[in-house]
Parts: sequence; structure tokens; C-alpha cells
Amino acid sequence: MQLNNVPMKVSSYFPFLIWARTYNTGTLGNDLGASLIVVVMLIPQSLAYAMLAGLPPVVGLYASIGPLLMYTIFGSSRTLSVGPVAVVSLMTAAAVSQIATPGSAEYASIAMLLALLSGVFLLISGFLRLGFLANLLSHPVISGFITASGILIALSQLKHLLGISAQGNSLPELITSLTQHATEFNPFTSILSLSVIAFLLFSRNYLKPLLQFAQMRSSMINTITKVGPAVAVVASTLVVAGMKLDEYDVNVVGDIPKGLPGITFPKFDAELWQKLIPAALLISVIGFVESVSVGQTLAAKRRQRIDPDQELIGLGSANLASAFSGGFPVTGGFSRSVVNFDAGAQTPLAGAFTALGNAVATLYLTPLFKYLPIATLAATIIVAVLSLIDFNAIRRAWNYSKSDFTAMMLTIIVTLIFGVEPGVITGVIASLLLHLWRTSRPHIAVVGRVPGTEHFRNIHRHSVETNKRVLSIRIDESLYFANARFLEDSIYELVAENQSVEHVVLLCSAINEIDGSAVESLESVNQHLMESNVLLHLSEVKGPVMDRLKRSHFLELLSGQIFLSQHEAVLKLNFNSTA
Amino acid sequence: MQLNNVPMKVSSYFPFLIWARTYNTGTLGNDLGASLIVVVMLIPQSLAYAMLAGLPPVVGLYASIGPLLMYTIFGSSRTLSVGPVAVVSLMTAAAVSQIATPGSAEYASIAMLLALLSGVFLLISGFLRLGFLANLLSHPVISGFITASGILIALSQLKHLLGISAQGNSLPELITSLTQHATEFNPFTSILSLSVIAFLLFSRNYLKPLLQFAQMRSSMINTITKVGPAVAVVASTLVVAGMKLDEYDVNVVGDIPKGLPGITFPKFDAELWQKLIPAALLISVIGFVESVSVGQTLAAKRRQRIDPDQELIGLGSANLASAFSGGFPVTGGFSRSVVNFDAGAQTPLAGAFTALGNAVATLYLTPLFKYLPIATLAATIIVAVLSLIDFNAIRRAWNYSKSDFTAMMLTIIVTLIFGVEPGVITGVIASLLLHLWRTSRPHIAVVGRVPGTEHFRNIHRHSVETNKRVLSIRIDESLYFANARFLEDSIYELVAENQSVEHVVLLCSAINEIDGSAVESLESVNQHLMESNVLLHLSEVKGPVMDRLKRSHFLELLSGQIFLSQHEAVLKLNFNSTA
Repeated sequence: MQLNNVPMKVSSYFPFLIWARTYNTGTLGNDLGASLIVVVMLIPQSLAYAMLAGLPPVVGLYASIGPLLMYTIFGSSRTLSVGPVAVVSLMTAAAVSQIATPGSAEYASIAMLLALLSGVFLLISGFLRLGFLANLLSHPVISGFITASGILIALSQLKHLLGISAQGNSLPELITSLTQHATEFNPFTSILSLSVIAFLLFSRNYLKPLLQFAQMRSSMINTITKVGPAVAVVASTLVVAGMKLDEYDVNVVGDIPKGLPGITFPKFDAELWQKLIPAALLISVIGFVESVSVGQTLAAKRRQRIDPDQELIGLGSANLASAFSGGFPVTGGFSRSVVNFDAGAQTPLAGAFTALGNAVATLYLTPLFKYLPIATLAATIIVAVLSLIDFNAIRRAWNYSKSDFTAMMLTIIVTLIFGVEPGVITGVIASLLLHLWRTSRPHIAVVGRVPGTEHFRNIHRHSVETNKRVLSIRIDESLYFANARFLEDSIYELVAENQSVEHVVLLCSAINEIDGSAVESLESVNQHLMESNVLLHLSEVKGPVMDRLKRSHFLELLSGQIFLSQHEAVLKLNFNSTA
Repeated sequence: MQLNNVPMKVSSYFPFLIWARTYNTGTLGNDLGASLIVVVMLIPQSLAYAMLAGLPPVVGLYASIGPLLMYTIFGSSRTLSVGPVAVVSLMTAAAVSQIATPGSAEYASIAMLLALLSGVFLLISGFLRLGFLANLLSHPVISGFITASGILIALSQLKHLLGISAQGNSLPELITSLTQHATEFNPFTSILSLSVIAFLLFSRNYLKPLLQFAQMRSSMINTITKVGPAVAVVASTLVVAGMKLDEYDVNVVGDIPKGLPGITFPKFDAELWQKLIPAALLISVIGFVESVSVGQTLAAKRRQRIDPDQELIGLGSANLASAFSGGFPVTGGFSRSVVNFDAGAQTPLAGAFTALGNAVATLYLTPLFKYLPIATLAATIIVAVLSLIDFNAIRRAWNYSKSDFTAMMLTIIVTLIFGVEPGVITGVIASLLLHLWRTSRPHIAVVGRVPGTEHFRNIHRHSVETNKRVLSIRIDESLYFANARFLEDSIYELVAENQSVEHVVLLCSAINEIDGSAVESLESVNQHLMESNVLLHLSEVKGPVMDRLKRSHFLELLSGQIFLSQHEAVLKLNFNSTA
């Protein structure tokens, strides 16, 4: 038994030990093919998201090598593709631009530090198995946050499309800044931007039906429609280089330092670290949630599964690798992972091959990016984030639950007006408070017997038999600290309304748990009812709840009895009362 | 109907309109008698708690006039006695001493401001009906906080018992300060302190059995044992005045400005207000929780009830009155309310009479306090807070639930080491996270049919019949954002383990609610299972949950069916599979 446990433990920390056993030439072919497609798609995306984060485009390439290698070793998803991602890049920009000027060497070194800190948080959370903390983010909050981030990202790229300079991390800042710089508008850049956006939207929305019409193989279609950004990059670079548009103030990527990133060491500065901690925490949480959702979606399609706590370790080590190789915070991205999956990647080794491809590109292709226009990268980002903005989700939340809607709208509004960090925090607090509010007032019904049966139903919904000496109360919620007081208050109120009551029976069939606060509440209910000559009984208590109650004094103090069924309770108590 | 609603509404904001209708000479007699006893008991307590808050003792009298009058009008408890209370006084000292020096005029004015702010918070919470927010404090956290506060209070009074000067708001600060000043030790003060403590402990623990032995009427006994502090005050004042002990450096209350407090206006200083907001919020919450617990306990004994939201208004107006009459934060206290209740108070008018008695004392008795030794007041506090310290609660929490124990110990340790505010906040966060952690991993069981019945039970606990094509899963918890991801993950895992499964049936009998996040999780479970050719079904869905699901798209998307019972589900699915 002990011998078996050891390798299990090891393979849970090194998931590659599992898939490596069955690796063969077929899997190798699939992984190699997928990685080639991902590399082509990833290069423009990496450059663009580095720019979104306020960094030189080449940093995006750096962040697409080391992290992928580390994730190959430690990640638990077979198809997740790790690297720069839109929302995390936006959060990086928001955090770092408050401390340093975008473009400066200090800015880049703080971005590395941010990757280091979030890597450390992710690793610690992984070892402490704190993956459940990501559950603090409810779906409406995540969805609202991503929609608002998408709007902010699109707006932040508008300057590149128009060829003007503007700054800002929130809607008011961005709009003010864009208005102030509107006169700098560059017609060449703008025409180029419009052409690229038109091409990307076309290849995204119309190319697929067109190729389907031409009866092309569907795997081929998927590949062709995904390389749109790469085509746009090549074409617009050729146009700019050929027409020497850079001499007409069309911004280009320019000279990029050639070669692989060296090993970098983020500087130690206690005050700076402290300032970055909140941002690093939020980036870890958001990155983790995004990555796990993607990983889980893809794994489920092949009846595989991922281990959220191991994902923390995978993403944590990826971020550490990014920090030590001149990168910035990374996570598992939706679009890149879907490409990887669709292209047939079988194991995380496809990620390692992708890293290799990116390394080759960094070594030999960077001179080709000299004339790559910034506007093309901005257009790529805008078209990519359009899919993040989901106004339908707002309507769905409104229809389904007003409290979900409230949490979502608060997140969207605060994110747009005050920025990403206050937005996430507001969302988390709002959804927690709304949850507590809902469960703090559980549904409590006085029940009576349906004539001729052993069933007990709500006296307000059904025509049932009641007994003025026995009050039967059903509680439709687990009892815990947030509703313990409400429970006490409700019972006292019901007893105060029914002055002839001698027995109160709590029907516990819907109670899955009773915590310490609730036991104390039950004890004081029992005590106070006893003082006014009313006995308290329980019925239909679940096994695990009963086991727990046996560990408190409540059962010794209980003035009444525990009945197996409500029917039995009413039968016996009524008999005793009349006897 | 509308006509009836109006007076109901008014009387819910002015509870005295209810009890005033049936007021008669009998009730008047009871209220007058009770108020007399409370006044005698309250005067030393008020002086002592003002001192604990770092204020001149007379401020305690000021805070026992206006607040009681306001509570008489707006409070919903008939017997709660409002005024200075140990824990709130300690919190006041902790907050104000960070901004001003105890004893200074600025200190007193900041204490008033604190009363004003917490009054405003309580009133706003009352109008917005936010009483449920107090539920954020679980019983283990409250109990741990009160025990730790009791220890801090006792330690903070030690200096007065020994006649030395020491400062501090936490255990390390207090111990360091007491050690440093130990040499100032005054033998006269110490002997006096020991005598008073011995007398108080005797009258508390041994006087009652003695009088019972002497066959005295029990109501009389209760009265006599409660006036112990008043007797100690009179006796020690006489001793100090007679022996001129003040000339031997025994600290006395000294000259007190005669007369009622004037109307005071807390100063407006935006920065100062901002600094005080966190402390004022915590004082409001703690004061409210303490007060509501006491009020509910007493109301239940007479089958009356209190309205927590109206209590917020009652306590809020009491604090405003305190702020505008030179007082400090007040709330409903346990010991004083119990005295009021035991002494036979019938309506809040007893509180008004108590206020009147205190006003008379403030007008005419203050010269008598000149020789009242500070050590006597400190001894009163220490003996009073001994009952707050409850180490048994720690053992109970340990036995009942490790997560309750964790929250309690964290609260105690952080309160002792870092002070009251970090203590409460840590406790609240810890109990929230522990609750989320517990509910984020709900009990999920694969169930099978008990042979020959229609019952389905856990396959790991019972010998049951299962079907390799139909997987029946029971979830023992409401589904909401904190466990939505766990649900998804668990279902995928179970399906991955059972590769021959064609149908998954979720048995929903224990699900009381499904929030928006959980619906989305169910939708993606449905989608992913469909992609791997597994149909998802639900059974035994509760009525309100079904109503809610009808407002989402889930039922349209659902690949399988909704069954009334698990038995029906398995029967039909099995039949279809084999057919």
C-alpha cells in the first residue's frame, strides 16, 4: 500500500510521468503538427499582448518560450496553451503603469517582478491546495469583468489604430486622453488599420462558409481561418516596407534585439514588492480562473480531467519561468488553447514544440518584424477581444436572478470607471454579500399533514391538517452562522404568534449541515422555549448531521425528542398531549 | 387594507406606540422599581467603562442619559438597557488612542465623533434593513473575540489596581508597559484593590447561597447581590476620604464638573472622519450583535420578540444622542439588561426613568465621587469581565468542528497580539473562507437502488444495485458559485472513471437553490457530456428550484429529461438502453 502511494504522489506533481508512458510516434506526429500551427498563430498574438501590457513586442516572444516548457512538465491539462493573454496583459498594464512609465527599462523589470510574485502565489496556493479560493469569483462576476476588460482593451488600442498617443486604465481616463490627442490622427495608419480589421473580420466570419461552399476539408478550413492574423502580419509588413510608410509616421515595431532572452533576476525592493502584492494576487486569481475554465472545457471534450491544484503549480512555474527569462505574467489562453486542441495536440509536449518554434522565431525571424506596423497588432487585439464582450450575459443574468445581475453590473461599472483591480474586488465582495444575504433568510415553512397521508406540506400552499399544540416547522437550508440568528428569530416569532403551542418540531430533511453557530442557536432556542414551557423536537435528521450533533451538548440539553419522521413526531406528541 | 397599513408602518418605526396603549399603574410601578435598582447599579459601571474608554469617569454618566431616552422611543426590546459597555469601551479606547492622548480634550471630542459615526452607520443600516450583515460574525468568532477582549480589558485595568501608569491596546504592548512601570507600584492602592475585588467576588459567588440559607425572598436576594459594586463604591470612597489616602498617591476621581452635559457638536474634519470610519463600522457591528443577542434572549423568555432592523434604528439614535451630549459609543449591555429584566421592568419606559435617575445623580451626586478611588472602578471592571472570558467555548468548538475552532483561535490570537480591530476582521474573513471552503466541496455520492425498494443510497455505504449505463449522482448541497466548479469537476471525474456510462442522472432532492453560476456549470456539463455521447438528466427537483430553472435556457439545452423520482429515471433509462 505504502509502496503504491509513493509513485502516485510523484506522478500527481509531475503529470508527464503519466502520459509519457504511452507516448508513441503517432502522438508525436500529432503534437508536432499542432505546434506548427500554434507557432504561426501565436507569434502575432504574443507581440500584440506584450504591447497591450505596455511592453516592447519582443517580450511577448520571451514569455512564450520558458513558460510553455515549464507547463509541459507541471501542467495537468494535455492541451492548454500557456502564454500572454489579453485580460492578464491589461491587468499587468494597469498595475505597472502606476509605478513606472511604459516603455522604460524599469517598467519591463517591474512586469517581470509581477510575474515572479504571481508565480509564487500560484505555487503556494498549489502546495496548500487553495484552488477552491478561485470559487470566490462567481460566473456573473467573471463574465462582467471580462466584458468590461474587453471594452477597456479595445479602447486602449484605439490610439494605435489612429496613430495617436493616449494613456489611461479606465473609461474616463481613456476617453479624455483620446479626445485630447485626436488632432494627432494619422491618415496612413488609419487606412492601414481599417484594412487589417476588415480582413480579420472577413477571415473570421465569412471565410469559413466560403471555404465550406468550396467543399474544402473541415480540418483544413479550421487551420486556414485561424492563420488570419499571421497573414495580416505578413501582408501589412510587406505593404509598409514596400511603400516606406514608416517615413509617413506609421509606427512600426522597429529593431528588435536578436537572440534568446538571458536569465534575468527581478530586483529585490521590499517597498516595491509590497506595492505589487495586491495586483499580483488578482492577476494570479484571474489567470487561474481563466486557465482552469479553458482547461476543463477542453479536457471534458475528450473525457479527460485536470487537477485544479496541480494547475496552480503548472501556472505558477510557468510564471516563474517568465519572470526569469525577461517576460511578464502569463496564463492559459482561450483562443490559443482551442487552436492547439483543434490542431490535434495530444499531450503537453505539443507545448514544448511550440516553445521550440518560438525560440527559433526569436533567434532568426525578429529582423523581419522591423516593418511590422503597430496598427496591425492593435487590430489583431481588437478583433480578438470583440469575442470577449458578451452583452447577452447581462440579459441572461437579469432574467435568471436579480442578485446575479446586481453583482455583474457592479463589476462592469466599477471596472470601466475605476479600473480592473477595484472591479474584481467589488465583484467578489458583492457576490459574497449577496450570497450571504440569500442564505441568511432561508425559506422556513410551517407544515401540516396532507389529510390521509404521512406527507407534510406548507400550510400556506396546501390544505393540510395542523394541531394547535404541535407546531411543525420545516427549514429549507443548511444551518450556519449567516442564518443562525434568522432561525432563532423566526422560531420565536412563530411561537409568539401561536400562544397555545406546547411542542415545536423542526423538520430537518433539507438540512445538509449544522455548524457551531447554528448549534448554539438551537441550544438557546431550546433553552428559551423551555422557559416558556414549550418543548423542542427534531425530525428526519440526516445521518451526517446527527453524527455531528452527537459531538455537541445539544442532544443532552434538548427538551424534546428526535423522531425518525415528522408523521411519527406529530402522532406521538398529539397522543401525549391529549393523554 | 391601505388604511391598516399606515399605522402598522408608523408603529414599526415607533415601537412605543404599541406598548403605550396598554400602559397602566401596575406597569408604571414595575418600571419605576426596576429603574431605581438599575440606577444604583449603573452609576459605578458607567464611571468605570468611561475610564476603560480612556475618558473622564463623568462621561459615563453623560452617556447614560440621552441614549436611554432615545432608545425608549425607538428601541424594539422592552427590557434592553443601553449605555456604556465593556467591549465597546475597549474598542473606543483602541481607536481613539491612536489619534489623540487619553485624557485630552481632543480625545473626548474624537470619542463623541466615533459615537456620531457609529450612530449614522446604525441608522443607515436600519433604514436599508441591513441587519443581516451582523450575521457575518459567526458565534465562534464572537465568542473568541469577547474572550480575548475580556483578557485585554482585565490587563488594561491592572495598572489602576497597582497604582502604576501603563498604556497599550494589545497583549505585547500591555505586558511590556506594565513591566516597565512595575516599580511605580503603590501599596495603598494595591491593598485597596485587593479588598474591593475580594468583596465583589464574595458578593457575586457566596452572598447568594448565604442569603438563600437565611431564607430570604429570592427577588430580594437578586437585588442585594447586584448592588455589590454600589456598596464597594460607597465603602471605598468613605475609606479613602476618611483616611485621606489620596495624599498617599491613591488615585481618585477628583473634582467633576457639576451639571448636565450641554449639547455638543462633533467637529467636521474630513480626514479625521475617514480615519475613524473603519473603527466606527466595527463598533457598530459588534455593539449591534451584542445588543441583539441580549435583547433576543430576554424577549424570548417572555415570548416577546424584537425586530433586528428596528434595533439598528434604536441603537443608532442612542449613539447620536450620546454624540450630541458629550458621550461616547454605547450599546445594549448584558449585565445591565439582565438586572433591568430581573428587577421587573415591563416597558422601555423603565429606561427613561433610569435616564432621569442618572440625570439627578449627575446634577447632585458628582461631588460625592471626589474621593472615589480609581482602583475601585478598575476592580469593578475586572470582576465584571471575568464572566466574559469563556475557555470552555474553545473546547466545545474543538469537539464540534475543527473549522469553528480555527476561526475562534485565529480571532483570539489576532485580537490579543494585534488588537481588537484586526481581531474582528480576521475572524470575519476566516469564518467566511472556512464556510466557502466547506460548501465548495459538497458531499457528492454515487447512489444505487436498495434491492426491492424505490430507495437510492450511497454505493459506498450500502449494498445496492447499480447499472453500468446509468450513473446516478446525489448532491447534498445547494449549488452556487462557490461549489459550481467542484460540481463540474466531480461529474467529469466520475464519468471519466465509468467509461461505459450513457446517462448521468443528478438526484436533486437536497438542492435548495441553484444560482446563475451553477446553472452555467450545469449547461457546460450538459454540453460536454453531450459531446462525449452521454445524456444528462435530473430527478426529484424541488418546486422553487424548478421555477427558477425555467427562467434560464438550461431546460431547453438539457440533453436528457427531468424525472419526478430517481426510481422512475433509472427504470425508464434502463428500459430505453436495453430496447
